[in-house]
Amino acid sequence: MDNIKKYMLGNPIETEAAVYEIEAAKGPCPCLEMDAQEMEIRCPLGDDDIVYGLGQQVRGINKRGWKYTSFSSDDPNHTENKESLYGAHNFLVVDGGNPFGIFLDTPEKVSFDIGYSKPDALCIRLSSWNAKCYVIEGDSAYDIVKSFRKLIGPSYLPPKWAFGFGQSRWGYQSQQDIEEVLAGHEEHGLPLDMVYLDIDYMDQYMDFTVDKEKFPDFPGFVEKVKSKGIRLVPIIDAGVKIKEGYEVYEEGAAKGYFCKDGEGKDFVGAVWPGRVHFPDMLNEKARKWFGDKYKVLLEQGIEGFWNDMNEPAIFYSERRLAQVFEKLEEYKGKNLGIDSFFEMQDMVRGLSNHQEDYQSFYHSYRGQDIRHDKVHNMYGYFMTRAASEAFGRIEPDKRILLFSRASYIGMHRYGGIWMGDNHSWWSHLLLNIKMLANLNMCGFLYTGADIGGFGSDTTEDLLLRWYAFGIFTPLMRNHSALGTRRQETYQFTDIESLRGLLRLRYMLLPYIYSEYMKAALQGDLYAKPLAFAYPEDAQASSIEDQLLIGESIMVAPVYEQNAKGRYVYLPEDMKLYRMRSPEDMDEEMYAKGIHFVCAAPNEVLLFVRAGRLVPVAKAASSVADLDMGHLGLLGFVDNKDAVYELYDDDGYSKACSLEGHIRRITPAEGVTISP
Amino acid sequence: MDNIKKYMLGNPIETEAAVYEIEAAKGPCPCLEMDAQEMEIRCPLGDDDIVYGLGQQVRGINKRGWKYTSFSSDDPNHTENKESLYGAHNFLVVDGGNPFGIFLDTPEKVSFDIGYSKPDALCIRLSSWNAKCYVIEGDSAYDIVKSFRKLIGPSYLPPKWAFGFGQSRWGYQSQQDIEEVLAGHEEHGLPLDMVYLDIDYMDQYMDFTVDKEKFPDFPGFVEKVKSKGIRLVPIIDAGVKIKEGYEVYEEGAAKGYFCKDGEGKDFVGAVWPGRVHFPDMLNEKARKWFGDKYKVLLEQGIEGFWNDMNEPAIFYSERRLAQVFEKLEEYKGKNLGIDSFFEMQDMVRGLSNHQEDYQSFYHSYRGQDIRHDKVHNMYGYFMTRAASEAFGRIEPDKRILLFSRASYIGMHRYGGIWMGDNHSWWSHLLLNIKMLANLNMCGFLYTGADIGGFGSDTTEDLLLRWYAFGIFTPLMRNHSALGTRRQETYQFTDIESLRGLLRLRYMLLPYIYSEYMKAALQGDLYAKPLAFAYPEDAQASSIEDQLLIGESIMVAPVYEQNAKGRYVYLPEDMKLYRMRSPEDMDEEMYAKGIHFVCAAPNEVLLFVRAGRLVPVAKAASSVADLDMGHLGLLGFVDNKDAVYELYDDDGYSKACSLEGHIRRITPAEGVTISP
Repeated sequence: MDNIKKYMLGNPIETEAAVYEIEAAKGPCPCLEMDAQEMEIRCPLGDDDIVYGLGQQVRGINKRGWKYTSFSSDDPNHTENKESLYGAHNFLVVDGGNPFGIFLDTPEKVSFDIGYSKPDALCIRLSSWNAKCYVIEGDSAYDIVKSFRKLIGPSYLPPKWAFGFGQSRWGYQSQQDIEEVLAGHEEHGLPLDMVYLDIDYMDQYMDFTVDKEKFPDFPGFVEKVKSKGIRLVPIIDAGVKIKEGYEVYEEGAAKGYFCKDGEGKDFVGAVWPGRVHFPDMLNEKARKWFGDKYKVLLEQGIEGFWNDMNEPAIFYSERRLAQVFEKLEEYKGKNLGIDSFFEMQDMVRGLSNHQEDYQSFYHSYRGQDIRHDKVHNMYGYFMTRAASEAFGRIEPDKRILLFSRASYIGMHRYGGIWMGDNHSWWSHLLLNIKMLANLNMCGFLYTGADIGGFGSDTTEDLLLRWYAFGIFTPLMRNHSALGTRRQETYQFTDIESLRGLLRLRYMLLPYIYSEYMKAALQGDLYAKPLAFAYPEDAQASSIEDQLLIGESIMVAPVYEQNAKGRYVYLPEDMKLYRMRSPEDMDEEMYAKGIHFVCAAPNEVLLFVRAGRLVPVAKAASSVADLDMGHLGLLGFVDNKDAVYELYDDDGYSKACSLEGHIRRITPAEGVTISP
Repeated sequence: MDNIKKYMLGNPIETEAAVYEIEAAKGPCPCLEMDAQEMEIRCPLGDDDIVYGLGQQVRGINKRGWKYTSFSSDDPNHTENKESLYGAHNFLVVDGGNPFGIFLDTPEKVSFDIGYSKPDALCIRLSSWNAKCYVIEGDSAYDIVKSFRKLIGPSYLPPKWAFGFGQSRWGYQSQQDIEEVLAGHEEHGLPLDMVYLDIDYMDQYMDFTVDKEKFPDFPGFVEKVKSKGIRLVPIIDAGVKIKEGYEVYEEGAAKGYFCKDGEGKDFVGAVWPGRVHFPDMLNEKARKWFGDKYKVLLEQGIEGFWNDMNEPAIFYSERRLAQVFEKLEEYKGKNLGIDSFFEMQDMVRGLSNHQEDYQSFYHSYRGQDIRHDKVHNMYGYFMTRAASEAFGRIEPDKRILLFSRASYIGMHRYGGIWMGDNHSWWSHLLLNIKMLANLNMCGFLYTGADIGGFGSDTTEDLLLRWYAFGIFTPLMRNHSALGTRRQETYQFTDIESLRGLLRLRYMLLPYIYSEYMKAALQGDLYAKPLAFAYPEDAQASSIEDQLLIGESIMVAPVYEQNAKGRYVYLPEDMKLYRMRSPEDMDEEMYAKGIHFVCAAPNEVLLFVRAGRLVPVAKAASSVADLDMGHLGLLGFVDNKDAVYELYDDDGYSKACSLEGHIRRITPAEGVTISP
């Protein structure tokens, strides 16, 4: 790792993000100005420099022209002006004449001004002068990303079934609701691998409980569903309800495993269940204790989880709620004008996720008491690590599905993330495309957006277009919020088209799984911008709405309502598969250059690169039903000697490596899939 | 108007939107199913039908695939899921095999489901079965729009100076702040025609007052500014502060000119000044009285106004505020869980613009007492009419600048509108482009967005790109909100480029003014979608990010951050003027078809259609300084006989007509402009 230098700023908190120990560099950094006084790291930006990275943030693949803040935030409106989402991914590549990467390893808040204040300047501002600043050199942005990935270790490996399609909704209230979802899929021949359980399944939103009235025999139900090849995937929240008689609460309190307030008492926040304590995920013992709690659900047949609200989100703290109610008294009966009225409204709105609250509780980390804001960005990471490490103890030989909302670099080794509470906006389909590239650079390969959109009402055409892209995201989940339009595939008019798209996912699954696993095992990218594959092509470098998926495929999704198609730039000749279902697709050759490519709402535009192959299976109703022994091939090859190296394995054991799991397949043995 | 049929549903309230009396049609409507029982008007939509119209709404030029509601709303987040903005423009064209238009004339709330519930169905839902439903037939969508425009009468004519550039910001606190703005423009050679005064200029936000501390000699200051060719344009709000000794309040109360509550007392809402009464703009006497109040500012030298908060926005009503404070008591000291906490937050948030409040006050309209919600969408319209009619009495021979936030069809005869409180989002630059087309169809020609974005922080590249489009919008104003990044042109790094773009506006002003006036006088469109000019071109019909501006120009603005250019579709051969300033531009021929056209952030892509000309002037520091006697021509013509019919007049008198104001200019007399 000679191309990585580590600059020690002050006395940074260990995050365990990097897996290699690199000796601290001496002397000044050649490409960055480090200003301890102003707590800023600066460098100039050339006119045409592209800045990649930052993982889960709004805006483009190129992050230039905005200011971002790494401070895990529960924000349900991912509009362009937002500076923080759920993740804190302090990795950037400045891609100009002498490209270099920066990874700023600190769990405190960090701000990035990427040509916002001054168009030609990058300025990173720390909350305190404590961080490990890694500077990574390389020949290209892609090289630098791969070096960075090596530094932070391999990405999480989910079980194979996690690449199936999942249905979710906040609001499935009972076993009966879930059964309706299963029946809806079955009746309409819609493939399905999992149904997600949002907070509704719990008893009073208490972690590791199941509401007995809603699910009288939960293990039996889990088993019954699994017999159809479908898994239930419950949510776990960070906060533990304060309730006498609730074992997790009582144990945690007795053992001192919750975060403490300034007076040494267990800190009281509030989330879904009302008042909660937050387990101190940074405390090794508490982490082990919390992780072991997942066992109660594993023992009931559960094989996957999503960790939520672990920024942590705080609807309000007990202390500030009391203060606000007190202040509200002062407004009563007054003539509230411009200032006072908005002050009052903002006070009530501002109860949630307040900075003051994040400064008012404490962790015990590596033997030190430390205030939360100093380690804020590690909380979700360590919650997910708690689960992952417990799975290693409880199920040492089995991959468990795990993904999180909040994250920090390093967490990518323990689980995936979903892209958080997006909306049923066309702009969020586009954001999904762009964010996928940036998250891949930061190691988060197992990821995807809430397809169809979580908040707001979806439309049928949006769902069709989102499926047409979503079939390429490793995590493929349709999820929606309580109170929004029902969004399950079978709720719409043209179910046949939606089914065709879902079945294409299963047809492509051998390729998707193979490319995912190869990327994860080799520290490579599953999804990448065109610029990484065509570095000499100036036109390709600014394209943000097309992606390369694995080694063979370029996708060009339609993300505009009522569009008849879209402009596509081909950096080389490619073969287009225009696909409506595994049984209904056309092929067409496209020459390098610009094209307007028509795409009906039920069509996927899948471009295959020259000389590349795409192994496909006969679509099935679930991943378990895929016949991996009889694959076909799509491809753009003119000789029978072309080879695709297929990764495959049993789909669940942890002994994953390229060795022993690669099969070379060629057109000679491959056949085009027919229904 | 044989192609327009009027169907009388129930007993509609007269809005005076139409200027022609059309006899009520008998028998059923051939293209619409009218269901009085369900209060719905329905028709099927063909697969390729385009639905134009609705004026000020989110989403595309083609409104298909969403649900919209006409109910004037003060909503500062124009995200894709919003159903109502400030305007209520119930005009649609269903453009399929047999195109037809619908104008649903009722001031009540109306909902439009345009392929949302069912992709192939349009469903309009009324609040009561009372409306005039006009059905307009024609050979094309464009024809139908022109017939509709004839029905609703000619568009507002602003003075010529209103086509200059205006600077605005909520937060200019004093004469000194305004002087700084003037100095900033002067110092950097930035042209300027007006500075807008937001609420800050008033004494305690009282309409028709000027804060004497901030402006010790307001008329003197107005005069001093005007001597530089610049006008001050103050805001007028709908609500009148309740304050003893404040003449407008006391007079209005004494004369009974305010809206009444259910008990016959003056209704108490609250806006910027705190508690206010709302003048009953629908009451003819009150309207005259309120309109005459503008005189106090006209007499101080003011020549233009913007009417705001006239949906009307209601921060809270006295009655509901008291209720909410009472209810808040119940939440105090409780363990607020998921339901109760959000209920509490929503209650406080929901104080503003609450439906209950809109149902709790009354107007006296045409001799009848009528509850506000029955006439809600007319309020801003009649406020603007109050001003316009007063100007006719006070300044019978002078055009006064007037635009409004809320509007209804019919108001386009009295003033323009701005597009409301947008954000510094790239998506809102695109929305600006699309909304311009739809608003033009509804008669609102004098319009534009807050350039650079009102809410959120802008960026320099966004401002550059927005100027590059904004120079084509009749209302060209840079406006931003209190607390956001300063957004005046001279606050940025590359002032030279921004100046170049502003000066292009002035160079193009002869064309812009001429095309605006011709469109307004002939009931035509100033800005229109490509489909209207190239109806046979299928590719053109779905293009929503290019517009025709007048008869000669096609614009193709860049609206994506970090883009190096954009895809452009040319429905015919065109000549591109790539313009950086009046002194710095290149010409290039482009053939019919698809191109990726590079565009640096400081460049305008102006395409000239075949055989067309664009008269230009030498850029000046204000409209008054333009030398209209020495024009040049840009154009794409191959012979010297090509003619442009230039409309020009004195710029202020009301005697505007094509006759006597058209000058035919040809390349023979025109010269290309040089600096």
